[in-house]
Amino acid sequence: MVEKVALIGSGNWGSSVAKLIGRNVQKFDHFDTEVKMWVYQEQIDGRNLTDIINEQHENVKYLPGIKLPENVVACPELVETCKDATMLVFVVPHQFVSSVCKQLKGKIPPNCKAISLIKGIEVQEDGFRLITDMIQDALGIRSCMLSGANIATEVAEERFCETTIGYRNRADGELFRDIFHTPQFRVNIIEDVVGVEMCGALKNIIAIGGGLVDGLKLGANTKAAIIRIGLYEMRKFSQMFYKDVKDETFFESCGIADLVTTCAGGRNRRVAEAHVTTGKSFDQLEIEMLNGQKLQGTSTAKDMYNILTKKGLCDEFPLMTTIYRICYEDLPPIRIVEDI
Amino acid sequence: MVEKVALIGSGNWGSSVAKLIGRNVQKFDHFDTEVKMWVYQEQIDGRNLTDIINEQHENVKYLPGIKLPENVVACPELVETCKDATMLVFVVPHQFVSSVCKQLKGKIPPNCKAISLIKGIEVQEDGFRLITDMIQDALGIRSCMLSGANIATEVAEERFCETTIGYRNRADGELFRDIFHTPQFRVNIIEDVVGVEMCGALKNIIAIGGGLVDGLKLGANTKAAIIRIGLYEMRKFSQMFYKDVKDETFFESCGIADLVTTCAGGRNRRVAEAHVTTGKSFDQLEIEMLNGQKLQGTSTAKDMYNILTKKGLCDEFPLMTTIYRICYEDLPPIRIVEDI
Repeated sequence: MVEKVALIGSGNWGSSVAKLIGRNVQKFDHFDTEVKMWVYQEQIDGRNLTDIINEQHENVKYLPGIKLPENVVACPELVETCKDATMLVFVVPHQFVSSVCKQLKGKIPPNCKAISLIKGIEVQEDGFRLITDMIQDALGIRSCMLSGANIATEVAEERFCETTIGYRNRADGELFRDIFHTPQFRVNIIEDVVGVEMCGALKNIIAIGGGLVDGLKLGANTKAAIIRIGLYEMRKFSQMFYKDVKDETFFESCGIADLVTTCAGGRNRRVAEAHVTTGKSFDQLEIEMLNGQKLQGTSTAKDMYNILTKKGLCDEFPLMTTIYRICYEDLPPIRIVEDI
Repeated sequence: MVEKVALIGSGNWGSSVAKLIGRNVQKFDHFDTEVKMWVYQEQIDGRNLTDIINEQHENVKYLPGIKLPENVVACPELVETCKDATMLVFVVPHQFVSSVCKQLKGKIPPNCKAISLIKGIEVQEDGFRLITDMIQDALGIRSCMLSGANIATEVAEERFCETTIGYRNRADGELFRDIFHTPQFRVNIIEDVVGVEMCGALKNIIAIGGGLVDGLKLGANTKAAIIRIGLYEMRKFSQMFYKDVKDETFFESCGIADLVTTCAGGRNRRVAEAHVTTGKSFDQLEIEMLNGQKLQGTSTAKDMYNILTKKGLCDEFPLMTTIYRICYEDLPPIRIVEDI
C-alpha cells in the first residue's frame, strides 16, 4: 500500500521538516511523492504565501534562505490538504490543535495515522491532557510523538542531530521514521509516546532553573546538578502520572539531549538569567526580550505547580516547586539551591 | 564504635575534601574528631609543607586561599597516618595506588574500609582493572567509590553541587556519606561501585568528542547528540564488562551530571577544540597547553580501543572508536558525525 503524507503547519519547524519529508518520500516506493503542506494564508508584499512557496520553493517568511523540495506543495485549505492522506504530521502551535481536529473529523481516510511534533501540554480543570491524546480522541486515529534536541534552523542547515519518535504501534513508528530519518537527522524509535511527549513539555521548566543558576554565576557543577535533578523530577513526574513511561526514554534525544540543549541556549534560559542579573519580573522581561512570544517555561511551571498542589506532591518535586515560586512568588533566585 | 578517618593524599581535590571531612567528623559522635592527612613532603620556601599546613591550616601549594579545619593534621608518614584508621580515603594520583597499598599491607586495623576518589582505570595485558578492586585485593578490605560533577575549587568555595558514592555494603556507604555530605555538597549513595567508577573513567573520552564538535562549530544540537550517544556507549561498555552495573547510576551525578560538566569545560574538551581550530596534533597541544599535565581523554580512548579491538567490538562503539581514530590515526575531525 502506498502512504501519502500531509503536513499540518508551515512555521519555522514545520518548514524545516518539510525539507526532510519531501526528500524522503522520494526515496521509497511505499510513499506517494507529493506532500501537501497546509499553510495558514498570509499576504507577503501583496502575494499569497502559498503562491510564493509553490513558485519559489521557499518559505520566505518562516524559513528564509532554505530551499524546499519541489514535491512539497503548499495548500491554504486544511481539509483539502489532508483528504487523501494516510499519515498526518501535526506541527501547528499547540492552541490550534483542537480546532484543526474539529475541521478534519470525518474528512480523513480511516487508515490514517498521525504524529505530533508539538511540544506542550493542554492543562485542564482536573489535570492535563497530552496533545497526542487529543488527536487520538478527536479523530479516532493512533498518534506517535516526535521530540528531540532539534533547533529548527540547525536541522534545516543539515547539521548533525538526533531525535526520538515514540510509538504505540511499531509499524507506525517505522513508517514515520522513514519520512524523517536522514544521515544528519538520526531518528530513534521507542514504544513510549507519553514519555517522549512529557519530556518535551517539562524540559522548559528546568531551563528556567538553568538560567537562574547562570545568572547567579554558581559555576558548572551547580548547573550540571540542576540538569540532573531536573531530569530526575521529569522522570518521576511522568511515571507518577503514567506508569508505563520508560526509564530508557530519558536516555534518548527527547530526554537528556533536549534538556542539555535547552539549558544551554533558548529563550527560557535567557530570560531567567536576565531575571537574576536585572531584578526585573518575568512578565516585564517577556515584554522586553521576546517580541510578543510567550515564555513556555514559566507557564508550564505554573501548570505543573497547580497539579502538584492539588495532589499534595510539592515536597516530592522540590526543584519544579522552587522554580515556580521564584517565577510567581518573588522568592529570591538563590533559593533554587537552598530549597532543593 | 568510633570511626577514625585517614586521608591519603593532599592535592587540589584531596585538600578540598579535607575541608568537608574535617568539619563533618565534628558533627557526629561516631567519629574521632582528628583526621590525619598524608602529605607527600615538599619544601616551600625552605619549610616543610606539612608544617605550613599544620600551622597556617592552609595547603598553600595545592589549594591556596582556603582554610582547612584545625582538626585536619598533615602527616608526612603514610603508615603513621593510617595505622589507627578505620576509614581510608584514597585521593592520590592513580599511578601511586599500588605502592601506597604495598606500604599499608598488614599495617591497618582489620575492620578498616576504604573509599576511592580516584578517576581512572588501570590497564593491563588482558583487559583493565578498577582502582577499587586494586585496593580491595591488595588490602583485603571493601572499597566504595566517590565520583560526581565536582570541580575541586568550586567544592572548596562551597558552591552547590552533588556527588555519588557507590557501595557494596550499605553501612559503608552511609558512613562515608556522613563524612562528605553537606547542604552544598549533596551525596547520593547507590549500590554500584563499578558503575560509579566506570563513569569517572570513560567520560574523559566523550569530552574529547565534545571539544571536537565545539571546534567544528556544529551547534548545540550536535553537541547534545554527542553527549547522549557518549552516555549510551559508557553505559553499554560498563554493562558489557560488568553485568551488575545499574542503569540508575547513569542518572546520578557521577553519570549524566559529570559528563555534562566535563563536556562543557575541562582540559580534554579544550585541547580537542584546539586540535580542530589549529590542526596541531594532540601530542603537540598537550605540550603547549597543559604545562606538563597529561590528557586523560586520549590515553583512556587508546586503552578502551585496545580492549574493543581485541574483543572485536569496535562496531558496537562507533563514537569511542571514532574518537580514538581522530586522536591517533589522523582521521579528519568531521568524521565524528559521519562515522557514528
